[in-house]
Amino acid sequence: MGGVIGLDVGGANTKAVWREGDERRVLSRPFEVWRDREALAAVLREVVGSLGEPEAVALTMTAELSDAFRTKREGVNFVLDAAEAALAGTRLVVLNTVGELLDADSARERPSEIAAANWMASALAIAVHFPEALMIDVGGTTVDLIPIAGGDVVVRGRTDLARLMSGELVYTGVLRTNLAAIAAHVPVRGGWCPVASELFAISADAHLILGHIGTGEYACPTPDGRPATVEFARERVARLVCADVEQLGAAEIDAIAAYLYSEQLRLVEAAARDAGTQLTALAPVVPLGSGAFLAREVAERLGVGVRDLPWSEAERAVAPAAALAELAADRLRARC
Amino acid sequence: MGGVIGLDVGGANTKAVWREGDERRVLSRPFEVWRDREALAAVLREVVGSLGEPEAVALTMTAELSDAFRTKREGVNFVLDAAEAALAGTRLVVLNTVGELLDADSARERPSEIAAANWMASALAIAVHFPEALMIDVGGTTVDLIPIAGGDVVVRGRTDLARLMSGELVYTGVLRTNLAAIAAHVPVRGGWCPVASELFAISADAHLILGHIGTGEYACPTPDGRPATVEFARERVARLVCADVEQLGAAEIDAIAAYLYSEQLRLVEAAARDAGTQLTALAPVVPLGSGAFLAREVAERLGVGVRDLPWSEAERAVAPAAALAELAADRLRARC
Repeated sequence: MGGVIGLDVGGANTKAVWREGDERRVLSRPFEVWRDREALAAVLREVVGSLGEPEAVALTMTAELSDAFRTKREGVNFVLDAAEAALAGTRLVVLNTVGELLDADSARERPSEIAAANWMASALAIAVHFPEALMIDVGGTTVDLIPIAGGDVVVRGRTDLARLMSGELVYTGVLRTNLAAIAAHVPVRGGWCPVASELFAISADAHLILGHIGTGEYACPTPDGRPATVEFARERVARLVCADVEQLGAAEIDAIAAYLYSEQLRLVEAAARDAGTQLTALAPVVPLGSGAFLAREVAERLGVGVRDLPWSEAERAVAPAAALAELAADRLRARC
Repeated sequence: MGGVIGLDVGGANTKAVWREGDERRVLSRPFEVWRDREALAAVLREVVGSLGEPEAVALTMTAELSDAFRTKREGVNFVLDAAEAALAGTRLVVLNTVGELLDADSARERPSEIAAANWMASALAIAVHFPEALMIDVGGTTVDLIPIAGGDVVVRGRTDLARLMSGELVYTGVLRTNLAAIAAHVPVRGGWCPVASELFAISADAHLILGHIGTGEYACPTPDGRPATVEFARERVARLVCADVEQLGAAEIDAIAAYLYSEQLRLVEAAARDAGTQLTALAPVVPLGSGAFLAREVAERLGVGVRDLPWSEAERAVAPAAALAELAADRLRARC
């Protein structure tokens, strides 16, 4: 068969991976669906068109959670409409949270299974390579922790709500997370200071200051519209405690950033230990996502090894799209 | 002397009170300084012009904290420039955190004393009427807790940073606070659910659902741009746990709102008990602000009485501006 595309439509980014034989092409296109949802079909047309003419497109999404939509049902249908309009007859299959690839009509009948199914794509890809593993996909906004045992995906929750409650979805990430939502207090001059609940600084500012990401990896708008540099990131983090760079020195600000990272680590480590109870053995962590560095640090804390999928770094950063392309190619070929 | 205006320039609203003899006029004008800071002078001109031709304007601000400005110094100077441009020669005095009224040139010399001094205006007004009191001014975004003993304002902090650390400034309010910053977990179906750290719902949604405010008092934009009604507020609160109104019933959503209110109360009660240690006696609470209902509830929990300033409800809702008008009228008359 010819090329297939795995397409992961998020609320802030659309990610796509082209796969044809050994060839891969990866694309990540920032598009905030809540700003102009009507533009989605054009964005998808552009993304798919720039990769090639696929035989089939396999779709997953998290964009339906955006408040551009009143319900997930509305969001799922809207994204399906946009994809069908963009693809103009190219075969479309849609992943559900059970791991099946459905046609669009079947997908519309059960929107609750289609919403936020993208973690399942990555989990299925991992299960092929590592039958015992703990997937930790750290994205810009969220972390997916998925236990895989005996080659099966052994999750306790499948909807976002159930996954939040089971700890398999942790709503913290390395780019877009409001720092005010990571910790209620941060260390300042030997004491604790409550944070200002504004959107003054995001996790990308902390990770930029700490050297975990570079300016080029700061793949989202800055809260104050100023540059994604350490200097301006420090100004943003100072505002988190209603201060500025005349009141707080660089070392004082960097200590706040370091504390917030430790809080993110603590949160993900706790969720990983909890997810680990679903595993039968001491399984390795498979780190994915733009925040894979955080997943590796968690593996170290757990005292387990790290295994990487045999993909490029670019593919691992957009794991659900890469996995979906792999899955679609395998399943569609099997049916040919 | 003629009329004076007390002017409180916040980051999201500009509040003004006109005072001439027994006459009062109150104005609150939404203006988000980070959206278009260059428009501030025109807004101030319009606000002052619509109240009358004052003999003097007394200014205080919190807008300097906005990330429209790189530092508080820049913010203070920008607001002073805008006020001077708007007033075109009308006498301008500026409150500092010690309670003095300075001319603009003196104010520019010590921006750290001018930034976020508005709580001092209200505290001075209360001290005149109630020499022993705990002021609790609950605004849309923040709460000021100011102990007054022996007719003196006995605070432990004067800058925002010091006041956050002392607990005299609590960064939670009844309108604009991101619900994701109030609690890390909320109750869902007998368990706890971590919240999504997005800006899906704000405290105005919770208080609207709970009947603490009406649609007309929802004086800020909704996060999703949809109407400020209970129906839409429930949709926004459902999103806080990545759910929608097809997954969660009204009673389940209202339980989340009720829990978040209890968390706000707990936070303010704790700060009030702490501020109370500065008082020599069991002093009454003086509730102020658009969230005075919350301050009254805290007084009940503390087991102390409530005393109201002899002002209209409209004046109490914009207490720093009303207080500043009173203060300016008294001090400027004394010097005549």
